[in-house]
Amino acid sequence: MQHATGAAPAATEVAPRVDSARRQRTRERLMDAAYELFAAQGVHATPIEAIAEAAGFTRGAFYSNFESKTELFFALAEREWRARLDHLRTTFERLLPGEALEGDRLDPEVVTRLVAEIFDSLPDDRLWHLVHAEFELLAMRDPEVAPRFLASTEAVQRELAALLDVTVRSLGLRFVMDPADLTRLVVEQHDAALRDAILSDAEDRSGAARATVMRSLPLLLTRLTEPLDP
Amino acid sequence: MQHATGAAPAATEVAPRVDSARRQRTRERLMDAAYELFAAQGVHATPIEAIAEAAGFTRGAFYSNFESKTELFFALAEREWRARLDHLRTTFERLLPGEALEGDRLDPEVVTRLVAEIFDSLPDDRLWHLVHAEFELLAMRDPEVAPRFLASTEAVQRELAALLDVTVRSLGLRFVMDPADLTRLVVEQHDAALRDAILSDAEDRSGAARATVMRSLPLLLTRLTEPLDP
Repeated sequence: MQHATGAAPAATEVAPRVDSARRQRTRERLMDAAYELFAAQGVHATPIEAIAEAAGFTRGAFYSNFESKTELFFALAEREWRARLDHLRTTFERLLPGEALEGDRLDPEVVTRLVAEIFDSLPDDRLWHLVHAEFELLAMRDPEVAPRFLASTEAVQRELAALLDVTVRSLGLRFVMDPADLTRLVVEQHDAALRDAILSDAEDRSGAARATVMRSLPLLLTRLTEPLDP
Repeated sequence: MQHATGAAPAATEVAPRVDSARRQRTRERLMDAAYELFAAQGVHATPIEAIAEAAGFTRGAFYSNFESKTELFFALAEREWRARLDHLRTTFERLLPGEALEGDRLDPEVVTRLVAEIFDSLPDDRLWHLVHAEFELLAMRDPEVAPRFLASTEAVQRELAALLDVTVRSLGLRFVMDPADLTRLVVEQHDAALRDAILSDAEDRSGAARATVMRSLPLLLTRLTEPLDP
């Protein structure tokens, strides 16, 4: 995020905040327009002019908000990831039972119910999956973008890993492997399930992806956790 | 694979075989040229004319061998997957120890050594990963191609699952989940590790991917297997 707050003159104390709010709205509109175009015709195929026009701005307005299409993508990804992480956190808080153990292990039925409810409340992620997969490919082919893409992916996975770790610890359990590695497993499994649901053109995509994940995730989580104090 | 063997006249019993061998060489050369171009500039950005020219053939020769770029991709994928599956099978046969158990569980050290040797002998897969990822994206956006891409991916994973299943059974073990689901986990984990190694521009990509997989795969396999006859 690159708000140019440092550039505000010291004498006007209210104006910068108004500017900043308007600026944020402009950025949001540009991101919304870009997201639609990226999803419909692809990231590579979408020129900056088309994004500015679809959002109702000039090319100059685009550049006063984002240095490049890549900068806009990273801001968009930050926004999308933030929304999903927040959603996951509140879903965990809302659903987490006081008792999720069966003996000294995570109860597979509780895990199954949690995963089902999380999937039901998530948005259909087909468009984001397409946009993200294309940008990942562009990043792999562009040494300038690659390290930043990897760093931002890892930052999100670290945050998700911390959330999962806190959650199982609150149940008196811990993961038998580094939570970061387990998180990778879960994320990749989810992404692969979504990809297959997209490829199979399932009418109920979210349901199809959920069914795929369900075949292994509960078992995986119960096998890869152990009591915190044995 | 679409050899037009059915069209051979019954009277000439030798000629069709020669034709077929020449035809196969032509197809191989077209696939080699396409692979290089797909890797260098992308699947979408490579016109059929460029493939034919790079292989030293006419556009007409391309079309007498492949109906489309998509048909060529599927033949190329079949070839690449076949090579990797064969490699894996012979590596398993060569390396599989008579004794891989520690008590009644898979010995993590044996798994670690096996995975290390398999990675060491695999080719650097950066180019194939890029080509495959782009085609996967194109398939997700093309309802004509999507079901076939999914079916061919699933066929390969079934074959790999059968190989993994036979391998653990030969050690007196079985997977605690459907081998197909476990195979998906392992494949996704490998692909994600390779993607991160590409993004991080690791000098020793294969080594970097191996290190990532090693952090969780041995533990995963030991936790997800159990004695065949308890």
